[in-house]
Amino acid sequence: MLACNRAIIARMESPVPLIPQLGAHLVAAGGKRLRPLLTLASARLCGYQPGPDHQRHVGLAACVEFIHTATLLHDDVVDESTLRRGLASANAVFGNKASVLVGDFLFARSFQLMTADGSLKVMAILSDASATIAEGEVLQMVVQNDLTTPVERYLEVIHGKTAALFAAACRVGAVVAERPEAEEEALERFGTNLGMAFQLVDDALDYAADQQVLGKTVGDDMREGKITLPVLAAYEAGSPEDRIFWERVIGEGEQTEDDLPHALNLIAKTGAINTTIARAQVYADAAVEALSIFPDSELRRLLIETVQFTVNRAR
Amino acid sequence: MLACNRAIIARMESPVPLIPQLGAHLVAAGGKRLRPLLTLASARLCGYQPGPDHQRHVGLAACVEFIHTATLLHDDVVDESTLRRGLASANAVFGNKASVLVGDFLFARSFQLMTADGSLKVMAILSDASATIAEGEVLQMVVQNDLTTPVERYLEVIHGKTAALFAAACRVGAVVAERPEAEEEALERFGTNLGMAFQLVDDALDYAADQQVLGKTVGDDMREGKITLPVLAAYEAGSPEDRIFWERVIGEGEQTEDDLPHALNLIAKTGAINTTIARAQVYADAAVEALSIFPDSELRRLLIETVQFTVNRAR
Repeated sequence: MLACNRAIIARMESPVPLIPQLGAHLVAAGGKRLRPLLTLASARLCGYQPGPDHQRHVGLAACVEFIHTATLLHDDVVDESTLRRGLASANAVFGNKASVLVGDFLFARSFQLMTADGSLKVMAILSDASATIAEGEVLQMVVQNDLTTPVERYLEVIHGKTAALFAAACRVGAVVAERPEAEEEALERFGTNLGMAFQLVDDALDYAADQQVLGKTVGDDMREGKITLPVLAAYEAGSPEDRIFWERVIGEGEQTEDDLPHALNLIAKTGAINTTIARAQVYADAAVEALSIFPDSELRRLLIETVQFTVNRAR
Repeated sequence: MLACNRAIIARMESPVPLIPQLGAHLVAAGGKRLRPLLTLASARLCGYQPGPDHQRHVGLAACVEFIHTATLLHDDVVDESTLRRGLASANAVFGNKASVLVGDFLFARSFQLMTADGSLKVMAILSDASATIAEGEVLQMVVQNDLTTPVERYLEVIHGKTAALFAAACRVGAVVAERPEAEEEALERFGTNLGMAFQLVDDALDYAADQQVLGKTVGDDMREGKITLPVLAAYEAGSPEDRIFWERVIGEGEQTEDDLPHALNLIAKTGAINTTIARAQVYADAAVEALSIFPDSELRRLLIETVQFTVNRAR
């Protein structure tokens, strides 16, 4: 991870100083670096032996983080967010224009990193994932404020915006280790299911978490009229009066200060958080199951713990 | 070009209907398709023989147009433009969010097209160009409103935002024809110089053209506080009183309705358009010169005419 962090900082360089400045802001904000960690761990799980001339996993981990960072920059512009990981978001500090353009730069840089890696297979995985992410983000925008969105459509959104990159991050790890297709597929399945669980829990936390723990404001999704499972479940299980409330605050986006506490009450009353976490647990179990083709090892145990931690942080 | 247009429409497809809808809006708006044309022409100039199994130039021409379209979508968001090619811009019709996200999709799709082509050399050329474009756009934002910008900095901006993709579009044509490095480099030089001439003329037209011919509003650059050569030249050659005017309208961005006619007068008085066109002509001559290693042919004559037309449209 140290090597990966160094690669991220080194490849953020540009003759245009604003680019590394905005990059430094993002790096300083921290973040879990979960996706590059998945690439590194997947490569090692498949027996990739790093050495001075065997650093492909590091370059690709940085590449995955660049794709992720580019989408975060654009997300914050699209969502008009002012906080990211508990600090002022890049668009709040540097403006929307800088965020759009530096996002484009990081995206282009990620493709330069892939090109430097030189594997067409890796390029196909990551360029497909990039297109799927953008489709997921567009779909999320289309269903915004629409309480009649079927749960399946919501699952498509989170598959696109989150699980696709988790899956690709894992799969490229297997590719650099030059392992059989079955191991690539197992790691892709692991990443997909972990990503689904991760996003479901994230969506639950937006209606449950302590702001300081989460590093973001509770109720962000509600303010943006985002359609997430906690809302769909509370709407589904709600009384006619509850539904009128949701139609006003989410459907029409007309919100007052008292609406968030009431929304949290309705979500608690209808068990919508539990519904969401239960679904996340199903994906988490599938993620763990996907690892079963690998022999027991400390690394495999760590990955399984990561899955469990992902779900348990909402409990 | 028909095959290329078909490829553009086919590859705009997505299970998320808003993506092809926004794509159709862009396709309907027309545009010159100059960049994909350069890829096709460069391949043919290098002797590439198209056939049912030899359509790489078409896929890469579409790829180049996708990169260009993605940057246009993001530019219009960044510049808050409402018109593009004489029609309502995509952000004006579909909103900024859709333009950012569909731009990301088209950018990802361009990398899928490159991956499908399968040449690492092509990928390096186009991913480098993509990073250079983003750097040029960021630099343009940084120097916005800054009348002390040296001309060299302005030339860096237009190299990034325009000439880099012209150069890449031409160079990949030579690559698919599998020609010696000297021909690749000649075409890259042709594209770079044509791109510089093209952008200089575009910047001149923004202070000169008939709105209906141009399909955009005269004075857009001024309203956005963009630093272009016509303004730098008029500022440089202006009286102290003129400079106070430019410092208010461009430096501080404080503009009234009467400022555009006055700006056009100052630009005429100082010969700033001629200064700009003279520089464009130097690049145009270098572009024509770059083609000298190719034997005379109808296609070469057409490319030379394209260069001359590019400069003459401002006369």
